Order: sequence, then structure tokens, then C-alpha cells
Amino acid sequence: MRISELSTRSDVPVATIKYYLREGLLPAGRATAATQAEYHDAHVARLRLVRALTEVGGLPLAAVRGVLDALDERSLPVAVGAAHEAISQPARGTAPGRTPERATALLTALGWAFWPTSAVLHRLDDALAALDAAGLDTDPQTLAGYADAALALARREIAAIPAGAEEAVRYVVLGTVLYEPVLLALRRLAQAAAFAESQATSG
Amino acid sequence: MRISELSTRSDVPVATIKYYLREGLLPAGRATAATQAEYHDAHVARLRLVRALTEVGGLPLAAVRGVLDALDERSLPVAVGAAHEAISQPARGTAPGRTPERATALLTALGWAFWPTSAVLHRLDDALAALDAAGLDTDPQTLAGYADAALALARREIAAIPAGAEEAVRYVVLGTVLYEPVLLALRRLAQAAAFAESQATSG
Repeated sequence: MRISELSTRSDVPVATIKYYLREGLLPAGRATAATQAEYHDAHVARLRLVRALTEVGGLPLAAVRGVLDALDERSLPVAVGAAHEAISQPARGTAPGRTPERATALLTALGWAFWPTSAVLHRLDDALAALDAAGLDTDPQTLAGYADAALALARREIAAIPAGAEEAVRYVVLGTVLYEPVLLALRRLAQAAAFAESQATSG
Repeated sequence: MRISELSTRSDVPVATIKYYLREGLLPAGRATAATQAEYHDAHVARLRLVRALTEVGGLPLAAVRGVLDALDERSLPVAVGAAHEAISQPARGTAPGRTPERATALLTALGWAFWPTSAVLHRLDDALAALDAAGLDTDPQTLAGYADAALALARREIAAIPAGAEEAVRYVVLGTVLYEPVLLALRRLAQAAAFAESQATSG
């Protein structure tokens, strides 16, 4: 297909496609004339992945390149892990200095495999500190309730990862980010429903 | 106790306490002299609740007043419901025009009690539209997985609501907001753990 059709099918403007080609984020098409090239389905898949990484994952191009390099040169699991970790970095890329001790201890107690350098451990540690500051319960049994629910969801999500490499990474990025507001909204609605349920029982 | 001790125990500055007194968010103490009043534990509890509503719940004072009015004049369940809904309002208070049809249909199918005017229905509707736009799965069975997890968590959370009126509303506000980042961080860590698990099985 020509670049105009590639643009239509990927929903990425021609100027942006040319920019990605110059930056090496998209492999060149097969030249068919001095100013024309032929593109394929693989280009569509790659563009859809770049869009997911930048628009939904919020990644800067350097991080996008890191994920694509992992996909091209290493392996799908490495690319999936790299993409998943990249979208969890703090917005300004500043690594917190403190060691996330409580989060690390919690995950060890849960028996979960984890990357000791993951930025998500810092997020969890900060969130636990906020619970403490408010005097809310952070005992292991309470946290295990949230952890069990998260793991049950995660196992379904992992089982649904599609087969193609680009599609797999794209699904992980989109699914991780876009199901978050669904889960949070459902939790608030579930709280209202469970509260109504408890009032009906006690009344 | 004197206002200085009330300030220490509630961790709210004296100037802020005087402002809340003028605004009617805190009942007056018992006057013991022309410029002195005596305060009680009920004032501490009320101040802790106002802090939770403003600092964690992000509520403007008008909304805080609505919750406190419900607590004083109506009933605890009404106050809990009002507080829970108030912290779910969109930041700018602009009500979306569209009817959240899909969210309403989903909750009806789930058999959950809900307020048809809840702002959270709009959040859920928007989140489902984003999944659709990305081509992600929104079939009822997939969404039921998230809904079931949310309801199991919510039932535990509701069962843990403390007895005192101020404490109950405070817990609902703090717990709703402060466990959100815990749940999201645990979900991302669970995804990494479940992915590692799936690779160990398939490799």
C-alpha cells in the first residue's frame, strides 16, 4: 500500500509517519520509485503500537524506541516487560531515592515474582504510607484482599494477550492503562451497591 | 479543652479552626469567658472529618457543608452516600449532558443497586467508550470479571466501616480515595507476576 493508505489504515497523519520513518521508529517501505514506497500490514501493526505507546501509554519517543528495540532484537517477553515497566515510570522520570521496603516485603510475603527495581514498588510504598498517615488499616490480611483480587484479574488479563508480537505489546499497554478507570469506577459503584445491601440487611 | 489543644489534637491550625467556626462547619464551643471557649472530643472528630473531606476528598467547602448537614439533620446512611457521591463529582462540577446508557445497562445486568444520577456512571461510560475506541474487549463476561472483583472488595470495605458517625463518613472518604492507588499498583505488580508465571509454564 502507499503511504496515504497506510495513514488511513493506521489513523496516523502522513507527516507523523514520515517523522517516525526518519526517527527509525518505523522500518522503511520498499522503494518503488524515487519518491514512492510500498508499505505492508506489518507497518500498520507497528504504527498502531507506536500510537498506543505514545498516546495511551504517554511514553516519550526514547522510551518507545526502547520497547521497539526489545521487540525487534530480543524477545516478546522482554518487550512486554519493557513496555509494561515503561508506562509505570513516574511522569518526570525522577527515580525516588528511598528503597520501597514495605512494598518489597509485601510482595515477598505474597510470593509474587517482581523486579526489585520496578517503579511500581515505589508507587505502592507511597500509597501504603498515605494509608498509614490517615490511620487506615494496612495489616497484611486487609492488603491480601486487594492483592488476591488484583492477581485474579491479572491472570485473566495475561491469558487474553493476543498472539502477534506487536499486537501483544499493544494489548498490554492499552489494557493496563484503559481498564484502570473501569476498575476504579466499578469499585465505587460496587461500594454503593454493597452499602445499600448492608442497609437492607440491617434495616 | 482550649482551642490550642483542639488544634494540636486535630492537626488543624487555630486560624483554620476559627474560619470553620465562622463558616458554621464546626459547632461553637461552650463559652467560658469573653474570648475563651471549651471544646470536646466531638469537635476533634468533626475537624478530622472536615480535613478528610477537603484534603483527601478534594471537596469545596459548599460540598463539605452538604455532607455535614446530612450528618447532623438526616441520617448516617444519607451522609455516607452524600460524601461518597460528592468525592466522585467531576473536578469542575460540570455535569455531562449525555445519558450513561452502557454503564446503566451494565449495572442493571449485574443486579447492583445504583443511583441513576451518579457521576460515577459517567466515568464508567467514558472508560468503556475509551476501550471501544482502542478495540479492546468490552463483552459482558470480561467486564463481569472486573465487576465481581470490585464487589468482593467493596463488601469487605463496607463491613469494616467503623461505628461512630463522623468516623464512618471519614473512613468512607479516606478508604475510597486512598486505597485506589494501592489497588492500581497491586494490579500492575500482579500483571508482572502473572506474566512471569505464564512464561514459566509455557517455557
